[in-house]
Amino acid sequence: MNETEISTLGEFGLIKELTKNFSLKHKSSVMGVGDDCAILDYSGEDTETLVTTDLLLEGIHFDLTYVPLRHLGYKACVVNFSDVYAMNGVPKQITVSVGISKRFTIEHIAELYDGIRIACEEYGVDLVGGDTSASVTGLIISITCVGEGVKGKTVKRSGARDTDLICVSGNLGAAYMGLQLLEREREAGQGVEDFQPDFAGKEYIIERQLKPEARRDVIAQIAELDIHPTSMMDVSDGLSSELLHICQSSGVGCRVYEDRIPIDYQTAIMAEELNMNLVTAAMNGGEDYELLFTVPLTEHDKIEQLKDVKLIGRITKPELGAYMVTRDDSELEIRAQGWNAFTE
Amino acid sequence: MNETEISTLGEFGLIKELTKNFSLKHKSSVMGVGDDCAILDYSGEDTETLVTTDLLLEGIHFDLTYVPLRHLGYKACVVNFSDVYAMNGVPKQITVSVGISKRFTIEHIAELYDGIRIACEEYGVDLVGGDTSASVTGLIISITCVGEGVKGKTVKRSGARDTDLICVSGNLGAAYMGLQLLEREREAGQGVEDFQPDFAGKEYIIERQLKPEARRDVIAQIAELDIHPTSMMDVSDGLSSELLHICQSSGVGCRVYEDRIPIDYQTAIMAEELNMNLVTAAMNGGEDYELLFTVPLTEHDKIEQLKDVKLIGRITKPELGAYMVTRDDSELEIRAQGWNAFTE
Repeated sequence: MNETEISTLGEFGLIKELTKNFSLKHKSSVMGVGDDCAILDYSGEDTETLVTTDLLLEGIHFDLTYVPLRHLGYKACVVNFSDVYAMNGVPKQITVSVGISKRFTIEHIAELYDGIRIACEEYGVDLVGGDTSASVTGLIISITCVGEGVKGKTVKRSGARDTDLICVSGNLGAAYMGLQLLEREREAGQGVEDFQPDFAGKEYIIERQLKPEARRDVIAQIAELDIHPTSMMDVSDGLSSELLHICQSSGVGCRVYEDRIPIDYQTAIMAEELNMNLVTAAMNGGEDYELLFTVPLTEHDKIEQLKDVKLIGRITKPELGAYMVTRDDSELEIRAQGWNAFTE
Repeated sequence: MNETEISTLGEFGLIKELTKNFSLKHKSSVMGVGDDCAILDYSGEDTETLVTTDLLLEGIHFDLTYVPLRHLGYKACVVNFSDVYAMNGVPKQITVSVGISKRFTIEHIAELYDGIRIACEEYGVDLVGGDTSASVTGLIISITCVGEGVKGKTVKRSGARDTDLICVSGNLGAAYMGLQLLEREREAGQGVEDFQPDFAGKEYIIERQLKPEARRDVIAQIAELDIHPTSMMDVSDGLSSELLHICQSSGVGCRVYEDRIPIDYQTAIMAEELNMNLVTAAMNGGEDYELLFTVPLTEHDKIEQLKDVKLIGRITKPELGAYMVTRDDSELEIRAQGWNAFTE
């Protein structure tokens, strides 16, 4: 890889270089990069605008010793898209701000933007603005995503009602176990020349950590089957934490069943290898970017038709609290042990 | 001031604490903080949506040894509002993301949000979302602002035409000179016990640096007088840099007149004291957040009626280049020496 100092381009040259391969696809993207603001058109009568933002910091959210910059760019986008899908919306535009310390070259940042571009193409999203700056230490990525919702169809966290069914897509804990594996191999490789990390048979959990996807396929199925989720969010901090968010926002309780929590076999094998509790990892691991949602009991037959979605429990009256029913039929109170940047 | 570690609250507790004094004012703010996305309504037939974002980093954009956190919060908002006004729009919503290192307490961050709240109240803007995270070093602030424009009235950088008049609001170079003064006093105070910085007679330039305002009053006057700017932007990197942006985007040249560049007397005195070239400071200082705009020659009489706006030059054919006409009638090519985070 060539190494070109960023100062050779300057801020405006850098923006031009980084955004040259991006083109605008949406009618709602009236004007993109290059003015004081981007101009968007969300004037459709039935339309509402969704806005979400995420801050990703080196040393807190990612470790560049094992995260390739291209994957990082991709993931930084996907975590935002996931938030828009979690409202039953469609992501349309992003702004990307990056803070870059001296150890990064133009080629490095171009790699990052390559990942951003691929994610934008994959999910049909336009890059419309941003900001670039030097940083004192490390890499900083701040992405804001604007999406389109249909009035009356946007799904909040607050609409779950007693007797609703609780569903989750995909499987849980894989990204977390992927992270454990990456960290184990990083430690094993320290000081070892030509160290080759051993990921054989664990490719899936590595991919779940490094290159997560947002579940727009589930959103598409929900629309096709005319399902009406009463509440929805994406699983970023762990299922326990998100269940409690829905219960709190909706003023309800819940029961989820341990034997229904979807877990991939690679996740299970990794937990076994590391002597970790598998259900704890699945409930609290985080970064799954699966969709957690509730539907009225009357839609039971419809959700049976959803591909890659599992019914894991039901919503209860608030006074019944939030519990997991274990395999031996005892009840375990759900507590948020989700990822918290301030306590680790 | 009490000192409470942020980890005592956790991420969600912190967000709740920081946003408790914010309320939603706009009809377009359908739902704010507390879900995967904010929901906005920009479905007005004549409406378009404006989006801008700014990344502010400790050690690059601000120095907390002389910038109070409340002022910083205020300024972080205002620089975004200024970008929306510079499109002839009205700022309506912001998302605020902060990265916080261990040396900051809850009380510190509450100060920052106090400044953000005051700016939001002053400018009639709703806080609708954001993200908080620990950071490895220093304070990181990323704000995205959403604003409303009227279709056909939004002003880009690209519409300036030959013979248009060039106008600028307020005066230039004051914020830059304020920064020089703050840095001088910081250096003078190093290692001196009970040092009192001497700002007497320089309060205006200090305020321009620490607590800048966005020129919505100018936008209001432009509407009242039915003026039609052909191009507009805010002066954040210095007049020279912004003039070149307009010339490049519009495919035109320009002539501005040295003796028409508006400069406050405190700016002049400070430049004298520091033995700096006054016009260079005014042309390249940056952080003025004044509005630079062009209007058709036919609106000459109208712009005479604008308060606190000065006619500083005219747009020319592109082949005539971009020059400043000095007091002795020679022509000086305009070069962007504006602030650049990557070369300082």
